[in-house]
Amino acid sequence: MRHIALLLSFDGTQYHGWQIQSNATTVQGTLCDALVQVAGVTAPPVGCGRTDAGVHAEYYVADFFTESKIPLDRFPVALNTVLPHDIVVHKACEVSDDFHAVHSCIRKEYTYRMYTAKTPNPFLHNRALFYPYPLDLESLCHAAQNMVGTHDFAAMRSLGTPVKSTVRTVYEFDITQNGNEIAFRIAANGFLYNMARTMVGTLLAVAQKKFSPDEIPSILESGDRSRAGATAPACGLYMTHSDYGKELFHA
Amino acid sequence: MRHIALLLSFDGTQYHGWQIQSNATTVQGTLCDALVQVAGVTAPPVGCGRTDAGVHAEYYVADFFTESKIPLDRFPVALNTVLPHDIVVHKACEVSDDFHAVHSCIRKEYTYRMYTAKTPNPFLHNRALFYPYPLDLESLCHAAQNMVGTHDFAAMRSLGTPVKSTVRTVYEFDITQNGNEIAFRIAANGFLYNMARTMVGTLLAVAQKKFSPDEIPSILESGDRSRAGATAPACGLYMTHSDYGKELFHA
Repeated sequence: MRHIALLLSFDGTQYHGWQIQSNATTVQGTLCDALVQVAGVTAPPVGCGRTDAGVHAEYYVADFFTESKIPLDRFPVALNTVLPHDIVVHKACEVSDDFHAVHSCIRKEYTYRMYTAKTPNPFLHNRALFYPYPLDLESLCHAAQNMVGTHDFAAMRSLGTPVKSTVRTVYEFDITQNGNEIAFRIAANGFLYNMARTMVGTLLAVAQKKFSPDEIPSILESGDRSRAGATAPACGLYMTHSDYGKELFHA
Repeated sequence: MRHIALLLSFDGTQYHGWQIQSNATTVQGTLCDALVQVAGVTAPPVGCGRTDAGVHAEYYVADFFTESKIPLDRFPVALNTVLPHDIVVHKACEVSDDFHAVHSCIRKEYTYRMYTAKTPNPFLHNRALFYPYPLDLESLCHAAQNMVGTHDFAAMRSLGTPVKSTVRTVYEFDITQNGNEIAFRIAANGFLYNMARTMVGTLLAVAQKKFSPDEIPSILESGDRSRAGATAPACGLYMTHSDYGKELFHA
């Protein structure tokens, strides 16, 4: 049995998230159908994150087992031929038997995109949050830095599948501006359900003067979800990296 | 009667081009419906170019007459409220009675976008031509420079509405690369039907070694459409400027 990891990207607009559902079109289900057709898989691929409906991915890793003898470098073209245009496989590599797209991951990165001009950009509809209001980047960076480090993020997540611990380590949270586009990049050892979107929503609450950047530590300490900001809309969120401690996909 | 010009942008994917048709959804028809609703117009807006189905615009000017007393700065928000998300009005200004979005224009600019990685980018589907083949930019720039200047472009257009002359002046034709994205920017005093797409298609024929950059002058002189390259697909083309000799829209 071969064990293969794929690097893919997808526009999540038309999907009800990653995870297979019986009555809705999902990225995992669509990729699974393609893998059945191309490589005769008998179990769905494992994905590196349970992205929600409307969330996108630029760099997403999924693994699967197959008896197929297709050469590695043929997988992208074979899968892209049967996949819809909004899911693209870029690379494939062999991984060890014990590789797991979630459990082997040591660091993940999400990027949240906003568009801040006075009028929308038709090319960013469903691709970035349209936010035509003032943003004091200095104050937002200050608030973001107060989320970096090892903290209990119970106050900044939605309730989902039960987890053993709500403590996570945020390695980086940086904000970059390019004209009217602002990108919030968050790297962590893991993310709770809706954690990235709630961290960004909490920065927007700071921008709206609902609380000051200096209140972030006490909000985290409280563990009280109602004290943090709203969950930012899905359309601005992209999975942008999943790190396994070594380069899986070579050029 | 007020005479007003609008600055708009649109994603042309879902439209059968600019010009109103009785049996298809067009940008002009959709904008006209919004102007009837918001400003009670009695004639369709005049647009700065007859963009084809699937062609986009980042900077497009359209003018119309109205008896409405809506303040200028309210037009964008009022129109965007009724327009679909893929057509956005950014600004409005008063223009003189004799202004005409086509006839008053002294210089137009189109930009053609290609994506050249080995696998597609799902976020550029319908937004750029996917072209996963080698491109020798030096040779393409050489070919492009041979199209700059005043020439008869009969060999690089499709037959459309009859025109008095097929002579046009191309002011600039530059090519810029940003990672896997390549942009071809063409500025001219006017464009014949499909001229921008045929100029780009002719560069692709040069890339495919169908002829050398040095043959461009003789292709232009021949006036023979069959000697130039194919018309490049619509999805990569954007109208990016329309110049009236002065700044119409102030910040």
